[in-house]
Amino acid sequence: MLPTPTKFTLVAGTGEGHTPLNAFDQALLAAGAGNVNLLRVSSILPPGARYAERVILPPGALVPVAYGALKSATPGERIAAAVAVGIPESGFGVIMEYSGRTSREEAEKTIRGMVEEAFDMRGLSLVTYRVKSVEHEVVMAGAVFAGIILWY
Amino acid sequence: MLPTPTKFTLVAGTGEGHTPLNAFDQALLAAGAGNVNLLRVSSILPPGARYAERVILPPGALVPVAYGALKSATPGERIAAAVAVGIPESGFGVIMEYSGRTSREEAEKTIRGMVEEAFDMRGLSLVTYRVKSVEHEVVMAGAVFAGIILWY
Amino acid sequence: MLPTPTKFTLVAGTGEGHTPLNAFDQALLAAGAGNVNLLRVSSILPPGARYAERVILPPGALVPVAYGALKSATPGERIAAAVAVGIPESGFGVIMEYSGRTSREEAEKTIRGMVEEAFDMRGLSLVTYRVKSVEHEVVMAGAVFAGIILWY
Repeated sequence: MLPTPTKFTLVAGTGEGHTPLNAFDQALLAAGAGNVNLLRVSSILPPGARYAERVILPPGALVPVAYGALKSATPGERIAAAVAVGIPESGFGVIMEYSGRTSREEAEKTIRGMVEEAFDMRGLSLVTYRVKSVEHEVVMAGAVFAGIILWY
Repeated sequence: MLPTPTKFTLVAGTGEGHTPLNAFDQALLAAGAGNVNLLRVSSILPPGARYAERVILPPGALVPVAYGALKSATPGERIAAAVAVGIPESGFGVIMEYSGRTSREEAEKTIRGMVEEAFDMRGLSLVTYRVKSVEHEVVMAGAVFAGIILWY
Repeated sequence: MLPTPTKFTLVAGTGEGHTPLNAFDQALLAAGAGNVNLLRVSSILPPGARYAERVILPPGALVPVAYGALKSATPGERIAAAVAVGIPESGFGVIMEYSGRTSREEAEKTIRGMVEEAFDMRGLSLVTYRVKSVEHEVVMAGAVFAGIILWY
């Protein structure tokens, strides 16, 4: 099987560019995840994975990540992304992602409810909760990104 | 290179929640794939991969999967997802995924045609055919998921 | 960590089918990437990765790829996809993907600007540039695909 990640960190960033993909690229750079190959996963924190304030990602590495993101080419629009993880007393954690045409505060409120619902569905009790979010007002083409990097 | 999967199983489930992502999370749980990191692939059954009625997925593992899924926030809407694999006499198989605002029967009919067309395009003869499908009538936010897990 | 790719090649193809997914499957076959499990990544060329005119992909292998693609079920519509990579004097390269309801020429023009912008954002100078693109006029259901395969 593929190696299961053993570390995690939360990252987020916003970006502007001439195209939505360039704005997204800039948001990844701002988040410190712009020079790797993101491999999107859905979205469980492996049991025993340790939190790291920062992780060092070699350029071009294949990096598992759960994320919420949104691109917009509507000048003036406010967009937000959030990611959160809930961790029980022991065992795996549950990651939720969210993005929308809304504020960072609303995004954080929504995602808190999502993590709580995911814990309820599994009959788990939430012990540790971490969240990261960003918002951005689009100038030309904008993007928001919030992710949990699963690393080794 | 990344290790090529050697086993496969078909899973499916439906879910309800307060948000589309929670409904999707519930559908994954119902399918037995809710506590891992799904890595979406498109979508070939490796040659020699053996069918397993069930596979044991360690929580948080990176799990290659080909799937069809649909989320809906329209109460009363009927949604369906199906996944199927065709396997020739020898060599690799071809996986197809489908989802739509339709019934399970329609989804199974459509996906059968898709697998047959994929075999025609490759000049292969279909020897073994496996399909799994689900349907759901949305209450608040609903999701359907049907996938083929590629495992080791 | 997952093994970092050491080789790359550019591929592209177009396809027609009875469903959009079959058209996409055909486009992958035309590109020489139809019998593997594509793992979509975003989208950096690892430092030192060597260009290969062709790579041999074992059927069913998990293959990291950055790609642009578009499916259309609108007969007569012209669709295009392009992928490009910019490489500096040393270090990692940056891959951009594009698809749209446009011509191949327009797609190539757009993606050139995207790579240049990505280099500007990183303060890098473009030394080597490679691009691959396709266009297709939809008959029934059509698809275009242009990708950079990251391999070992």
